[in-house]
Amino acid sequence: MFFENTICAISTAAGTGAIAVIRMSGIEAFNIVNKIFSPASKEIKISEQATNTICFGIVRDGERIIDEALISIFRAPHSYTGENVVEISCHGSAYIQQQIIQLLISNGCRLALPGEFTQRAFLNGKMDLNSAEAVADLISSQTEAARRVALQQMRGGFSSELANLRERLLWFISLIELELDFSEEDVEFANRNELNKLVDEIITHVTKLIDSFSLGNAIKNGIPVAITGQTNTGKSTLLNRLLKEERAIVSEIHGTTRDAIEDVVNIHGIAFRFIDTAGIRNSTDKIENLGIKITFDKITKASIILFLIDITDEDSNITDSIDNILKIIDLEHQRLIIAINKTDLVDVAEISNRFSKLHLPVSQKDIIFISAKYNKNIDELISALLESVNIQALDNNETIVTNIRHYEALTKALDCLKNVKNGLISEISGDFLAQDIREALHFIGSITGNISSDEVLGNIFKNFCIGK
Amino acid sequence: MFFENTICAISTAAGTGAIAVIRMSGIEAFNIVNKIFSPASKEIKISEQATNTICFGIVRDGERIIDEALISIFRAPHSYTGENVVEISCHGSAYIQQQIIQLLISNGCRLALPGEFTQRAFLNGKMDLNSAEAVADLISSQTEAARRVALQQMRGGFSSELANLRERLLWFISLIELELDFSEEDVEFANRNELNKLVDEIITHVTKLIDSFSLGNAIKNGIPVAITGQTNTGKSTLLNRLLKEERAIVSEIHGTTRDAIEDVVNIHGIAFRFIDTAGIRNSTDKIENLGIKITFDKITKASIILFLIDITDEDSNITDSIDNILKIIDLEHQRLIIAINKTDLVDVAEISNRFSKLHLPVSQKDIIFISAKYNKNIDELISALLESVNIQALDNNETIVTNIRHYEALTKALDCLKNVKNGLISEISGDFLAQDIREALHFIGSITGNISSDEVLGNIFKNFCIGK
Repeated sequence: MFFENTICAISTAAGTGAIAVIRMSGIEAFNIVNKIFSPASKEIKISEQATNTICFGIVRDGERIIDEALISIFRAPHSYTGENVVEISCHGSAYIQQQIIQLLISNGCRLALPGEFTQRAFLNGKMDLNSAEAVADLISSQTEAARRVALQQMRGGFSSELANLRERLLWFISLIELELDFSEEDVEFANRNELNKLVDEIITHVTKLIDSFSLGNAIKNGIPVAITGQTNTGKSTLLNRLLKEERAIVSEIHGTTRDAIEDVVNIHGIAFRFIDTAGIRNSTDKIENLGIKITFDKITKASIILFLIDITDEDSNITDSIDNILKIIDLEHQRLIIAINKTDLVDVAEISNRFSKLHLPVSQKDIIFISAKYNKNIDELISALLESVNIQALDNNETIVTNIRHYEALTKALDCLKNVKNGLISEISGDFLAQDIREALHFIGSITGNISSDEVLGNIFKNFCIGK
Repeated sequence: MFFENTICAISTAAGTGAIAVIRMSGIEAFNIVNKIFSPASKEIKISEQATNTICFGIVRDGERIIDEALISIFRAPHSYTGENVVEISCHGSAYIQQQIIQLLISNGCRLALPGEFTQRAFLNGKMDLNSAEAVADLISSQTEAARRVALQQMRGGFSSELANLRERLLWFISLIELELDFSEEDVEFANRNELNKLVDEIITHVTKLIDSFSLGNAIKNGIPVAITGQTNTGKSTLLNRLLKEERAIVSEIHGTTRDAIEDVVNIHGIAFRFIDTAGIRNSTDKIENLGIKITFDKITKASIILFLIDITDEDSNITDSIDNILKIIDLEHQRLIIAINKTDLVDVAEISNRFSKLHLPVSQKDIIFISAKYNKNIDELISALLESVNIQALDNNETIVTNIRHYEALTKALDCLKNVKNGLISEISGDFLAQDIREALHFIGSITGNISSDEVLGNIFKNFCIGK
């Protein structure tokens, strides 16, 4: 792959730092750096410098010295992009950074588009598309889990799994196509039972990957937890407690649209997005009802509903409120954790006994007696929250799909595979089977970029930061 | 110089970038990087890597892979600090940066104090103190002039000038001391006339350096310009015009305490701090008088007073307002520029004639007829502002003192030199002369760090950013 333009960008975070790094990649990178940089040692010639070496000198615009800097040389193909790359490590004044960028541009560079270095790395075969996308995820990772999953994907864990799937499907298709070549002789090279077994296996595998997306998405964007309950059950106290317990508050998750202010807390490396909702109660007040409607919306979108009960409340009232919450949540896809608050005000033994008679719709481990005010059993509550996350999958280094593009491609591939399965059952002809398999291959291949289009690439890399 | 601790810090700007650079310096740098980094190529051994080389690999905490990164190796003394230095170029997630810093600390690094890398460079003899201080100025430079002066000082322009002064004084003192050795024989090795001439020369030189501080300080902190005049003369319109004319608005200058919101505009590489003042008029209103008092304070602190006159005003009124402003400014140290505004409303030829009869207290070139509203003659006004700056000194690469510590040291050195001068006139004994010269040498030496104390160093480097 050959690119006409040599691109440049500031690769370090915006603003003033001790140092900053400006990156340049392309066919003209060494020629341009020759024009604007004089090594301190007269013996050094950029054009003769070995790859992966650094030299010190001055960045200059003709006679005007702009800065003293270190220049790192990476010769194609031994670089991130696979092209000639120069990194200029200069003093971190924002003004100096801008001056050097302007100097590079006036000497023939073009400002890089977001993600363009990584896009070139992909197009030059230095990494597949899935790894390239993981670079952006890695850069924006703010928790241990997000970092880990992104790094695993960048290092090709997912890619090799997909390659394996593709290989098995290609073997399948080769058998079918062999049959087609000999179609007039009505032979069956591909044992239909074996094919059936293979498709089942692949369907199971793809389904597992698709299912991992709910965890993957949660890791990437944080797990939405709606804190709800009737008014005055202590929701805000609990939220403050959770925020205080875990010091590492993530103030913002990039790329997440949030329709309300949410507090993101990093608990044992997993980001939880706590959504404080308005209290639920029957009301005829229009504005209050609107607030309740918003609460309902938030609850239906949350993965976990943390339902607070005030233990000093009457039994009938508690039963009513639980009945109300059960009307709007979907226990098959959402987890309900019932936190019984204000236990400091009553005798717990008696109360526990009382609650066991209430026939709450969740297992005993999801009913937790707490005192938000006195920090009692908050650890148990946190354990219950963490249980909602399939940490085992994380610990086993299982592949976790975090990217919605991959999720969609896998979902489409699954549809094709199901068509193959049905085709095998209804004994359709080999060429129809082959067509469905080819489609499945197309969707799986689109994840790693075996198949890609300019539009797809444009969409992927536009979300990158500039300089990577 | 030997430091027990190996220090580390994030050297690039805070926050998320495409990449970030973490720097490590000290005796254990290579041992520590060996523990946490595995080169991708098995053939590479960090302990055997040549200086100024880069290698790719993984940063890991035992079995846990934290990131893929590039490691730059600088062997003592071929490094910024003069010690063994390792720079880790990692993915720019703030989380990953923190993880790597924690990893380095748990492997024996200590977090660097602000400016500690540069302090080590100074203590290891890689640069003198004046150059070290210029590093901080360079990093915080936001205009062309500030960058240029800082770079010149970092590259040792000022230092060699001071070295020359020291040399001449040392020659002087050696002669005097020779006399002291032979004091009983009453000889005079040092021709008093020549000494006198030398002291005069040095005094002239030091005085020039001291005088350059007003320009140096202005370059570093911006030149304060008070825009004033009676109410409704168009001050705000003019300010907006100046801000609009020059797109490069510097929103904040670091380290500048500002008692009011000021607009800093970068005009031809020089920062001007425009201070919009309340209109001046006689008032009995207490609060308004308070505003006027603040205006007066601001005017007395400004280097340039840009006084606006409404041309449609009556002559007597204009004369009065000019008389008022003359009462509070000091024409010897402040420059008055009179801008006659709203010229679009009247015939200029006639008005010009009228103003020449008014006997304004400034030269003709400092009276500018403008229309802020219609953007007329604003360029002329900007030229007048720029004239207040000794750009020639900048262009001639003359030494400009920008640092208040240097200014104070030079002022003290000057006092000592004046004592020497007086001593020569009153023919005091050689040992008294020698003492004064030694004191002058002390103050000059303190600038480049020939003489320094822990306290002085502490004060200098605490204002640095971390990571440099």
